[in-house]
Amino acid sequence: MDRIRLGVVGLGRGFMLTLPALTGDERIVLAGAFDPRAEARERFAQEFDALAFPTLGAMLGAPDIDALYIASPHEHHAAQAIAAIKAGKHVLVEKPMAVTVADCAAMAEAARRFDRVLVVGPSHGFDAPVRAAAALIASGDHGALRQILTFNFTDFVYRPRRPEELDAARGGGVIFSQGAHQIDVVRRLAGQPIRTVRAVAGNWDETRPNDGAYTALLAFEHGAAASLTYSGYAHYDSDELTGWIGELGRPKAPTAHADARRTLARDEAAAKLARTYGNGAPPPPAPHHEHFGFVLASCERADIRLTPTGLALYADHAHEWRPLDPPAVPRRAVIDEFVAAIHRTSAPIHDGRWGLETMAACAALIESSRRGTDIFPATIIHDALEQIAL
Amino acid sequence: MDRIRLGVVGLGRGFMLTLPALTGDERIVLAGAFDPRAEARERFAQEFDALAFPTLGAMLGAPDIDALYIASPHEHHAAQAIAAIKAGKHVLVEKPMAVTVADCAAMAEAARRFDRVLVVGPSHGFDAPVRAAAALIASGDHGALRQILTFNFTDFVYRPRRPEELDAARGGGVIFSQGAHQIDVVRRLAGQPIRTVRAVAGNWDETRPNDGAYTALLAFEHGAAASLTYSGYAHYDSDELTGWIGELGRPKAPTAHADARRTLARDEAAAKLARTYGNGAPPPPAPHHEHFGFVLASCERADIRLTPTGLALYADHAHEWRPLDPPAVPRRAVIDEFVAAIHRTSAPIHDGRWGLETMAACAALIESSRRGTDIFPATIIHDALEQIAL
Ligand SMILES: NC(=O)c1ccc[n+]([C@@H]2O[C@H](COP(=O)([O-])OP(=O)(O)OC[C@H]3O[C@@H](n4cnc5c(N)ncnc54)[C@H](O)[C@@H]3O)[C@@H](O)[C@H]2O)c1
Ligand SMILES: NC(=O)c1ccc[n+]([C@@H]2O[C@H](COP(=O)([O-])OP(=O)(O)OC[C@H]3O[C@@H](n4cnc5c(N)ncnc54)[C@H](O)[C@@H]3O)[C@@H](O)[C@H]2O)c1
Repeated sequence: MDRIRLGVVGLGRGFMLTLPALTGDERIVLAGAFDPRAEARERFAQEFDALAFPTLGAMLGAPDIDALYIASPHEHHAAQAIAAIKAGKHVLVEKPMAVTVADCAAMAEAARRFDRVLVVGPSHGFDAPVRAAAALIASGDHGALRQILTFNFTDFVYRPRRPEELDAARGGGVIFSQGAHQIDVVRRLAGQPIRTVRAVAGNWDETRPNDGAYTALLAFEHGAAASLTYSGYAHYDSDELTGWIGELGRPKAPTAHADARRTLARDEAAAKLARTYGNGAPPPPAPHHEHFGFVLASCERADIRLTPTGLALYADHAHEWRPLDPPAVPRRAVIDEFVAAIHRTSAPIHDGRWGLETMAACAALIESSRRGTDIFPATIIHDALEQIAL
Repeated sequence: MDRIRLGVVGLGRGFMLTLPALTGDERIVLAGAFDPRAEARERFAQEFDALAFPTLGAMLGAPDIDALYIASPHEHHAAQAIAAIKAGKHVLVEKPMAVTVADCAAMAEAARRFDRVLVVGPSHGFDAPVRAAAALIASGDHGALRQILTFNFTDFVYRPRRPEELDAARGGGVIFSQGAHQIDVVRRLAGQPIRTVRAVAGNWDETRPNDGAYTALLAFEHGAAASLTYSGYAHYDSDELTGWIGELGRPKAPTAHADARRTLARDEAAAKLARTYGNGAPPPPAPHHEHFGFVLASCERADIRLTPTGLALYADHAHEWRPLDPPAVPRRAVIDEFVAAIHRTSAPIHDGRWGLETMAACAALIESSRRGTDIFPATIIHDALEQIAL
């Protein structure tokens, strides 16, 4: 089959993290890039023998771009994805899918109407331990899934940020950005729709105003429940519980959280920029799988603990360690899903509808915290889809 | 001051666990016991040079019994405590306080009306790490408390049980018996009333029918939230996260959970009896504090992790390990509180009202899971108190 000629939109930190999966993949050609930073796109053109597009429109008009990887700031995802789809391109769009559920609904609907592939990722829902655990749960070998417990204590709030990343109206805060990961993980494991979301979110630091933490109880349609807790203000580092392997699968110093607070630069914009393509070094290869904190899934007859190196299966008659081969390249599963969808060899799991449902759950989390009651994501989705139809 | 002449009601496993605190305490005289098992009460009389009462009535009529420690099966707590209070005795009653909220309300009201001390304990709310963390939080040094994350994965369902311990109507299942501990812990840490409870409880094993697991989100009056997860079906053992120190403060084998399932006796009644006074050996002294699983309390500017040996304080500028002196005798704090209340030197924290509130939260948890919505413990308490007034 033909290699997919991929155009990249947004050469920032997100792109840097996915880059090894793209350059290492024989099914992909890095064919072009658009980023308002001219030096970044020029450098990209040079490094990958590709085209530097001065505008998104130029890229959309280029016939030899088959698909786009949209890794621009959240607030641009919707307009860029919809424009790309209308121009006949397939789209891989970074999480969070967009900054409103209405935008997500419009994106999903555009993909459906124009029959283009839309995959939302990478997210930690793609991580190999999540996929392996989801398969084990779906097998039913250990009875029905009943409970998921997951939590992640990170320094998210104190990493260098663009101003809009601190602005809730532009998708800032942890709920869209990090909640989307955590919800993807539990949705993959549960394999059933979320019925209700009850949550308390919090804004704990007036110097970084935004929801930086939450705790939530999700009830699924077929009786399973999930407890999700996240703190981006964390002083405690839950990576302690994954053998000091960090989110990206690399060994991590126990002092990393404290360092983030200490070194939060006066010139934060520059610090953020230093992590983008053309400025920062790409991350070194990761010896372990990516992860999103402590995850324990409880079936009727077994508990399954997810770790960056494998699954610990605690069953009725045996405790079994099921190692997972270390990743050859990170995030390959994302490319697998995207490519298979484009070649129509298998339907993507993380398609527009999936992304819409995850974002509706994020929105439900925010709304539940505001209103102090259960919120039904299905209602949010229904309302969003109805708005499009008008 | 005079030593308190204590009568014990129920010489079972609960009594065995508290016994070291009683025999080691210079303020207490073990003066008598009532248990339907004649051999147990006779042996008690001999070992402690005390009286064996053939009926509870006989003990209540004895003028030289000042106070009762009620450690009989749950379903007897209310009637026995109220009778004791009416007979002029102070009461220390085991958790769960009773098997209905109405009973708890009646007990609290009896203590108030007859001006007797009523303390509900021991529970893990008395554990030294909980008290130390509560004091640290209450100091406000690290900002307001915002989130508590706690979970405990135990073999509770597979320990030997009396038949009524598996019967929800008689207080069976984990929510009253174990939820009362977990709720006491988070209430001590939060130091504010619970506003709402949202929970999903589950009955996962038809051979041991009852709610054996739950996950819950508690929202407190002043904005804090707590995530509580418990599984008494656990194959995974969360004591892994407390350095393999078990609930009672002693080193524990990683195989304990599997063993509980394997050895669950055919003659379960006999196995249960083997752990009571007169049959089992008293537990060896514990080198560490008791605990109730993983507990992490997040203030605005610090996370505090509770462990059986001390507190790990992760604050803005320092990670600090605050060791706690090992316990000289276990559960001394319970006796401290009970004695101080009787001598009127300080009001008890875990009084009848406290116990009522904890049980109302347990009832709210059950009700929330049944109805799939938030339940307000204050409403449950209000209704229960109104019934008494009639
Ligand atoms: N999946 C992950 O692990 C992961 C990790 C980091 C970021 N992300 C996602 O990637 C996206 C970008 O975040 P980031 O951290 O890379 O930000 P960043 O600031 O590091 O990079 C953003 C890049 O987009 C460029 N840009 C700005 N406006 C643009 C526009 N209109 N069109 C195209 N490019 C534009 C900027 O010049 C910059 O190069 C976000 O949605 C974020 O959530 C995902
Ligand atoms: N705080 C703790 O750590 C802890 C631990 C174990 C038990 N408990 C509590 O202690 C109470 C007893 O549980 P257990 O595990 O000891 O049970 P158990 O079966 O081991 O002991 C119950 C004892 O009460 C006696 N008894 C039965 N009916 C009685 C009656 N009407 N009056 C007086 N005694 C009677 C039995 O003969 C037996 O000796 C329960 O409420 C339980 O929740 C608390």
